[in-house]
Amino acid sequence: MSRKLRMGLIGGGPGSFIGRIHRIAAELDGEAQLVCGAFSSTPERSREAGDMYHLPASRVYASYQQMIEAESQLSPGERMDFVAIVTPNHLHFDPARRCLENGFHVVVDKPMCFSLAEAQALKEVVAKTGRLLAVTYTYSGYPLVKQARVLVASGHIGAVRKLYVEYPQGWLSGEVERSGQKQASWRTDPARSGAGGAIGDIGTHAAQLAEYVSGQRITGISASLHSFVPGRRLDDDSQMQLRFDQGASGLLFATQVAAGEENNIRIRVYGDKGGIEWQQADANSLILRPLDAPQQVWRAGCGYLDAAAGNTRTPPGHPEGYLEAFANIYTAFFKAVREHEHDPAVDLRRHDVPGVDEGLRGMAFIETVLRSANSDQKWTAFP
Amino acid sequence: MSRKLRMGLIGGGPGSFIGRIHRIAAELDGEAQLVCGAFSSTPERSREAGDMYHLPASRVYASYQQMIEAESQLSPGERMDFVAIVTPNHLHFDPARRCLENGFHVVVDKPMCFSLAEAQALKEVVAKTGRLLAVTYTYSGYPLVKQARVLVASGHIGAVRKLYVEYPQGWLSGEVERSGQKQASWRTDPARSGAGGAIGDIGTHAAQLAEYVSGQRITGISASLHSFVPGRRLDDDSQMQLRFDQGASGLLFATQVAAGEENNIRIRVYGDKGGIEWQQADANSLILRPLDAPQQVWRAGCGYLDAAAGNTRTPPGHPEGYLEAFANIYTAFFKAVREHEHDPAVDLRRHDVPGVDEGLRGMAFIETVLRSANSDQKWTAFP
Amino acid sequence: MSRKLRMGLIGGGPGSFIGRIHRIAAELDGEAQLVCGAFSSTPERSREAGDMYHLPASRVYASYQQMIEAESQLSPGERMDFVAIVTPNHLHFDPARRCLENGFHVVVDKPMCFSLAEAQALKEVVAKTGRLLAVTYTYSGYPLVKQARVLVASGHIGAVRKLYVEYPQGWLSGEVERSGQKQASWRTDPARSGAGGAIGDIGTHAAQLAEYVSGQRITGISASLHSFVPGRRLDDDSQMQLRFDQGASGLLFATQVAAGEENNIRIRVYGDKGGIEWQQADANSLILRPLDAPQQVWRAGCGYLDAAAGNTRTPPGHPEGYLEAFANIYTAFFKAVREHEHDPAVDLRRHDVPGVDEGLRGMAFIETVLRSANSDQKWTAFP
Amino acid sequence: MSRKLRMGLIGGGPGSFIGRIHRIAAELDGEAQLVCGAFSSTPERSREAGDMYHLPASRVYASYQQMIEAESQLSPGERMDFVAIVTPNHLHFDPARRCLENGFHVVVDKPMCFSLAEAQALKEVVAKTGRLLAVTYTYSGYPLVKQARVLVASGHIGAVRKLYVEYPQGWLSGEVERSGQKQASWRTDPARSGAGGAIGDIGTHAAQLAEYVSGQRITGISASLHSFVPGRRLDDDSQMQLRFDQGASGLLFATQVAAGEENNIRIRVYGDKGGIEWQQADANSLILRPLDAPQQVWRAGCGYLDAAAGNTRTPPGHPEGYLEAFANIYTAFFKAVREHEHDPAVDLRRHDVPGVDEGLRGMAFIETVLRSANSDQKWTAFP
Repeated sequence: MSRKLRMGLIGGGPGSFIGRIHRIAAELDGEAQLVCGAFSSTPERSREAGDMYHLPASRVYASYQQMIEAESQLSPGERMDFVAIVTPNHLHFDPARRCLENGFHVVVDKPMCFSLAEAQALKEVVAKTGRLLAVTYTYSGYPLVKQARVLVASGHIGAVRKLYVEYPQGWLSGEVERSGQKQASWRTDPARSGAGGAIGDIGTHAAQLAEYVSGQRITGISASLHSFVPGRRLDDDSQMQLRFDQGASGLLFATQVAAGEENNIRIRVYGDKGGIEWQQADANSLILRPLDAPQQVWRAGCGYLDAAAGNTRTPPGHPEGYLEAFANIYTAFFKAVREHEHDPAVDLRRHDVPGVDEGLRGMAFIETVLRSANSDQKWTAFP
Repeated sequence: MSRKLRMGLIGGGPGSFIGRIHRIAAELDGEAQLVCGAFSSTPERSREAGDMYHLPASRVYASYQQMIEAESQLSPGERMDFVAIVTPNHLHFDPARRCLENGFHVVVDKPMCFSLAEAQALKEVVAKTGRLLAVTYTYSGYPLVKQARVLVASGHIGAVRKLYVEYPQGWLSGEVERSGQKQASWRTDPARSGAGGAIGDIGTHAAQLAEYVSGQRITGISASLHSFVPGRRLDDDSQMQLRFDQGASGLLFATQVAAGEENNIRIRVYGDKGGIEWQQADANSLILRPLDAPQQVWRAGCGYLDAAAGNTRTPPGHPEGYLEAFANIYTAFFKAVREHEHDPAVDLRRHDVPGVDEGLRGMAFIETVLRSANSDQKWTAFP
Repeated sequence: MSRKLRMGLIGGGPGSFIGRIHRIAAELDGEAQLVCGAFSSTPERSREAGDMYHLPASRVYASYQQMIEAESQLSPGERMDFVAIVTPNHLHFDPARRCLENGFHVVVDKPMCFSLAEAQALKEVVAKTGRLLAVTYTYSGYPLVKQARVLVASGHIGAVRKLYVEYPQGWLSGEVERSGQKQASWRTDPARSGAGGAIGDIGTHAAQLAEYVSGQRITGISASLHSFVPGRRLDDDSQMQLRFDQGASGLLFATQVAAGEENNIRIRVYGDKGGIEWQQADANSLILRPLDAPQQVWRAGCGYLDAAAGNTRTPPGHPEGYLEAFANIYTAFFKAVREHEHDPAVDLRRHDVPGVDEGLRGMAFIETVLRSANSDQKWTAFP
Repeated sequence: MSRKLRMGLIGGGPGSFIGRIHRIAAELDGEAQLVCGAFSSTPERSREAGDMYHLPASRVYASYQQMIEAESQLSPGERMDFVAIVTPNHLHFDPARRCLENGFHVVVDKPMCFSLAEAQALKEVVAKTGRLLAVTYTYSGYPLVKQARVLVASGHIGAVRKLYVEYPQGWLSGEVERSGQKQASWRTDPARSGAGGAIGDIGTHAAQLAEYVSGQRITGISASLHSFVPGRRLDDDSQMQLRFDQGASGLLFATQVAAGEENNIRIRVYGDKGGIEWQQADANSLILRPLDAPQQVWRAGCGYLDAAAGNTRTPPGHPEGYLEAFANIYTAFFKAVREHEHDPAVDLRRHDVPGVDEGLRGMAFIETVLRSANSDQKWTAFP
């Protein structure tokens, strides 16, 4: 199938940050192209976005319902192949369900749904329809995060004992949501974001990164949530102790009131033979600290890498970043989509793409953290 | 003109690194799309590349001559708008000239030509045809390089006294060209690369960066060139003292035998009130050192930036890199191309795009360094 | 009193790391000199150390009891002025008590005592004797830690919301104590170390640093302790959530099984206007992140510093480190000692020297963490 | 000889920076003690310094001539063993000569003398008297600089090709010398500093570091000197190309007008198998970049170090700095001094202490750079 896959976009209208990101990421490796969209629930704003994306008016829709219906009726050689859903969380489930039921694969941003119940329902839809659904846990797309996972899995640091994972942001230190800032507005609104604030928006990233890199599964959570900004209805700060299934323990925090911080998600994992460290602020380096030898800095693009090799486009030293990590997830997803044509049982996991199970686990994580934060008991079991 | 610009590519066949980069960079912001190419002088390899790019066979050409001729005869609504030339240096001038003469705008990789004479001739073609020609001095596309330029120009570091600019690579430390590695092969071959080796390939980047950031012009050069690897016919190492037009002085080195180094181009500029530092290895940070106050780290994507603001796509902390810097040059070039429809006198410089003058200056730089390196006199005037 | 203060040392025999450190730190600024010692409970080893320190045999004692008695009988112009106690924790209280009761000031390493009960008793001895007792919480001796405290206190980061403090070590990742390594041997032995392992050895440092820098007091602890190395009788790993008296919260971990880590104690404090960060690995820099302005890096030795100014000896850029931080505590202590001659009510706190109250608080911290770790309740009040 | 060596100090009066440094460094390891001094040519200021150092009035002298004479007449068990000379450059030779001729060993700060002629004369005095003379090239005292030397010598980076060494300072960016600042005053005065400004003060450090680490000898210099501050009579900025005896080449700069810079002396050496990098700003790390393997970071105090092992006092991660590097030179010098008692032919070089030959080479370096800077010929031979 030497043709580009055709992408539809739900959400991503004017003022959206993540819509443009998905478009760039999906098209980056030349394997897909945006062909249609329902960019906003306001038709006029949807058209405005369609112009921005240089789409023909005929493929710019006034609603996602309309888009799914209309595209379904196009010829197989014309209609979209998959849809990326980049709306606020309360508008993930319904469009995803409709797309899947109409035969379209889906990419949905995290957290996967508004609630755990929706996530469970979505899992059933995926199973029933046999379509592919990917969840964009972006950070597991970084080449050196993949390399970290390989190093841990292959025993470079020995048996894992400690995990420290953190996601500090500072952008919600003030009452940004009152200024009309679109990103802040829905993220602090329980009706659109769901029950979790910081914990849903970035805590899920941190938890997924911890499990992805370490190969360990969280089994116990002892959490606190805070809302530091007066009047804010969702948590803007989370911190917790974690227990893992093979005896490791650790700490996680995800906060949006670490004033002055940007998006420096960071993970450290220590085993009995060494430790590894990766952070987005230095995304092209992976630090490996053996127990009794000099530290090593593994660098993206270098010939000695394993997993990371196929996930870079530039020679070492030409930095790749967030968009490229995002693209790695899309490009792996596209391989699965192409394979799906011949093998409907294709497993996203084998393509290293987070799917509905990871999405569901993220929703369960939010729900468990909320229960733990409301409990006087130290530990709450997960899931 | 709400449509994507149509891109043709000359070069960039299988094994090419920079061809894919240009494709990604040009398409990144959704303003252009690759529609045709003459990817290799071997028709079979050109077709192979065309498949890789998912192009229809009808738009994949066996030679650039054929492409230019065929595209010229397509309807205005179909034919390519501009061409990116990513062949080895000896194949820059002729395709560029033909494109310009047939009405196509041109993007050409640096160094602009094989020789200074070619560069001078190309400048005349540009003037005569009135088409736009951009030269991809990639590093001046980085948002914080642009911010550095603004800080210097606005007096934040005072009158410039010292410039240190360097481009250390290590990939040519061994006889890589004998292994059949395509990149090494033509870069070390005077018949394809021109008279300069390291000095042409990366020295020109360093010199352009120095002048771009500082606003100073090099007026004197005292250079040495070396070939450390036995049998190598071009320099793999260059170093020099520099004089600038407003009294500053400094050092430049560009080497391909700094074993273990990747592509860490770096610049430091000091004035009488402070200094600035930027390096590709930490591309999203710009260090400003005032004379008597704490160091400052300016970060990409932040609200307090001037010039850098329009050149990022992600919130602060989500790193952008080399591809995005490259895209910044293309996206600015596209603005000029669209403006050119209404105003053929559009000035690339006003759009912050390096043009034929910068390309010519780079060729003169190579030629002057070569003269200096062969001279016993300490200083050689530039240009 | 233009003379050096005379120092006695209890502990610090062959194989001791911290004894030599105290000697260097005390003498560094030329204000004191080691004149006598009871370096080991084995007289022969005490003499060996005495030779190493170039002390006359007459001032090298076979036991601390003997030393205190003998020195007390020397003339005021000859006898020691103060004693540094660097023995394992179970041998802090008795020598400290005897010194104080015989009129000698005391410097004792942390944790101050073997148990909370001892610490309470020691506080009474200090009050009764009117002598000075300092506890070497080394990290609060770093000039930029002092500057961090000033920045927080003066409102540079606004109202404190979050504190993250950590002390990762890796040296106890294996069964080092079975190899006869002296440092590991007593630190993992409850009979010599007390009830706390990592939590006592380095957790106390982290807690003191958090309170020192932030000016906040810990009021609640939710902790876990682990012993990862089989057979180890004390914790080698600790992690906890913290609550502070003015509404802040945070995380603390202190571990000795973070394989590959050295001694990188690190603190981050965030308020509603910005954040600060300091770590021992880059001890001469302090990062200040204002909410909406470029990051700042404050550097040791620079003219714009407040508190840090008097605590450096070298121009900026000539790094000072651990020994100099240690010396800052001693040198401040000596000022208090000299002042004590004229004003027996001299307050160590005014000299920025941690005293018996800080030592007692450290012991209470260990005891509370142990209680929390054994509790199913999420929070345990402190103290 | 279990006694401390007795130190005399010439220079180092009130306002001196380097005098206090020498006192601390000499005493740091407990092997020496300051016993006397001629701290200033103004007797009153000398006494003031004597009080600061807690010396008895009888050992505080009004002039170095008086000190040398008086100390010579004290009993062997009382008189000083060696003298540290920390006066401005024009007052190095005469006190050094007198000390040596009266049987005292000498430590002299760099540059060793006021002129090359003086240096040659001093070498003869050393030879004639058989006393030891050390020159404090401080940076070669850093443990990881020593490790770098070992790595290069043992072939870890292969045959050396390129050396880049730099010493950027910014403190003379303005007319500091007119403000009465003592350090600036004599360093910019040809009558006290000699013919070199920046080149003598810090260029000599850079050149010594390059030769020390690489084991290569400079054979050719192509230099420029500048005085950027109006009215300044000596160079405040130097830059040059270098040639080395075994085919390597490189760049050196030493400047005092890199506004905002502190004292970040830095060296990079590249061979055909890898490269190393060390800088004072991260003094406890040494970067080794093998050609085709992950970067390594060697850390001070770690068990895997060779040469560096004996030159640290603290466990890894507790940073040591400038004073400790300085102390390493003194402590090695003291070993030589003690050995000298039994073997007057002791070789300082075997103890890794820079001696009169290195001092002389530094003076020749200054002189050659000055000649090169005044020449239109590209290269000037060294020495």
